Amino acid sequence: MGSAARKRLSKAVVRLPARFRVDRPKRFRLDDVDPADTAGLREQECGDDVLAASVARLSDLQSKLYAEDRWSVLVVFQAMDAAGKDSTIRHMLSGINPAGCQVFSFKTPTSEELDHDYLWRHLRCLPERGRIGIFNRSWYEEVLIVRVHAEILANQRIPRHLVTKDVWEERYEDINAFERHLARNGVLVLKFLLHVSKEEQRRRFLARIDEPSKNWKFALGDVEEREHWDEYMQAFEGMVRRTSTSHAPWHVVPADHKWFTRLVVAETVTRAIESLDPRFPEFDKAKRKELEEARRRLLREGRRRG
Amino acid sequence: MGSAARKRLSKAVVRLPARFRVDRPKRFRLDDVDPADTAGLREQECGDDVLAASVARLSDLQSKLYAEDRWSVLVVFQAMDAAGKDSTIRHMLSGINPAGCQVFSFKTPTSEELDHDYLWRHLRCLPERGRIGIFNRSWYEEVLIVRVHAEILANQRIPRHLVTKDVWEERYEDINAFERHLARNGVLVLKFLLHVSKEEQRRRFLARIDEPSKNWKFALGDVEEREHWDEYMQAFEGMVRRTSTSHAPWHVVPADHKWFTRLVVAETVTRAIESLDPRFPEFDKAKRKELEEARRRLLREGRRRG
Repeated sequence: MGSAARKRLSKAVVRLPARFRVDRPKRFRLDDVDPADTAGLREQECGDDVLAASVARLSDLQSKLYAEDRWSVLVVFQAMDAAGKDSTIRHMLSGINPAGCQVFSFKTPTSEELDHDYLWRHLRCLPERGRIGIFNRSWYEEVLIVRVHAEILANQRIPRHLVTKDVWEERYEDINAFERHLARNGVLVLKFLLHVSKEEQRRRFLARIDEPSKNWKFALGDVEEREHWDEYMQAFEGMVRRTSTSHAPWHVVPADHKWFTRLVVAETVTRAIESLDPRFPEFDKAKRKELEEARRRLLREGRRRG
Repeated sequence: MGSAARKRLSKAVVRLPARFRVDRPKRFRLDDVDPADTAGLREQECGDDVLAASVARLSDLQSKLYAEDRWSVLVVFQAMDAAGKDSTIRHMLSGINPAGCQVFSFKTPTSEELDHDYLWRHLRCLPERGRIGIFNRSWYEEVLIVRVHAEILANQRIPRHLVTKDVWEERYEDINAFERHLARNGVLVLKFLLHVSKEEQRRRFLARIDEPSKNWKFALGDVEEREHWDEYMQAFEGMVRRTSTSHAPWHVVPADHKWFTRLVVAETVTRAIESLDPRFPEFDKAKRKELEEARRRLLREGRRRG
């Protein structure tokens, strides 16, 4: 690639996070996001190399985040099945020190979990300072699948008269308030909705059925859920409109091209952590003296032996 | 490399796990393990490539382990500071799906943790079926640092008359029994003691002091702990002699050469999981029918649209 082309490419990549961040939630319409969009980029020109560069920066930032021990980072993923959550997470974390990050997948709640409020099971998994935590699905399921399937809400054992027609609005409000609390206490919250088209999901499902190493994770229910596609899209739109905030913005990322989804997510997370400007701790005089003392002792030991 | 050399190399690598596994614990002497040993292998001939091959196999095995959802794998690391636990873990997990594994580092217990028995805080972190869990330090600290520093035991708030001269023997016994319970319930337990020499630790400490990106993790206490070196070696030996069992063997791995430590650990974990022979679940007739039904529906949808 020539240097002019490289410059154009790097400029386009820099703009990706803002392009897909929902800064004006009230005006947000899911239909405005084309699942096949690639922001004018082509896979050949920016597939593996650009992604690798982004991941390498992320790895460096993570060491500093860990050393500084001030911030934690929570990355939330929501999407329809087969939108690429798992593979995006996997790519983003490749090369990252596994000791500094943890991935949690939230499935159907257990009966112990249902005996608590819906935030509870997620709180237990929040990342510690210095760590990156990834939520594969999250409390947002409570305004998505629970909204699409009324019977789930009925089974949640919440005292009946507390559940009114305002339930979704109340959940948006509670989630916003809780995420604000996290932000105020040093958690960087980044939310990604991977937006795949119904046709691309169909293709990926067929591919899963055909491939033995993948068909174990497939169930007829996954296909049946497609009948609720439009309701899910409405629930997604409502969620983004009400819960994309300055302290915890949604990014709605086109997901028909996996290489592009990965690039946008990696670049967005990397830039967001960069903006925290994490640094290796600087030492005060006392600590410097301590290091000097340690060095002297170790050198003395060496001389004694030699 | 010629094919004869390659064959010799591959034969040597295959033998690594058994070479460092402690099968006859009663005869074990730590002095018999040379921290600088590389089993006759040279870094040039088997550095990155051989390690990468081992890690690639591990990644494949992990997908199957996860899909099968029967076994879990617990890998425990113990060592003196700077023996390379972190970097070994990082290399072993490179390329592995982060959703399928978790690393836990056990530091000084909190007061909540001290209000429980010493296994408690570890139990909460045991890997779920299908996952690989890594313990960076573990319940074995209870027969290592706690044994070397008597005052720690005194602070554990255990009713006084329960702590007798048999305390270490009792701990070995309890740990063995607990690990046997894990093994009986489908947890593959693999334990690694990374054996670094005192001189190599001195060199690595000096390097840490000199490098800004590393010196934040250094404290004078780390050097002072070297005064107890011989006591730690005795505690290691006692631990291995009493807790290397067929259901949860110790591997005592030379740790003066990082490339070699990584290779031995990756190869040992990979072979052990291979021996479980994890497989993608096979489907019964009903499930096959379900998949067929899903395929039919998806294809029908496509025709309707086309």
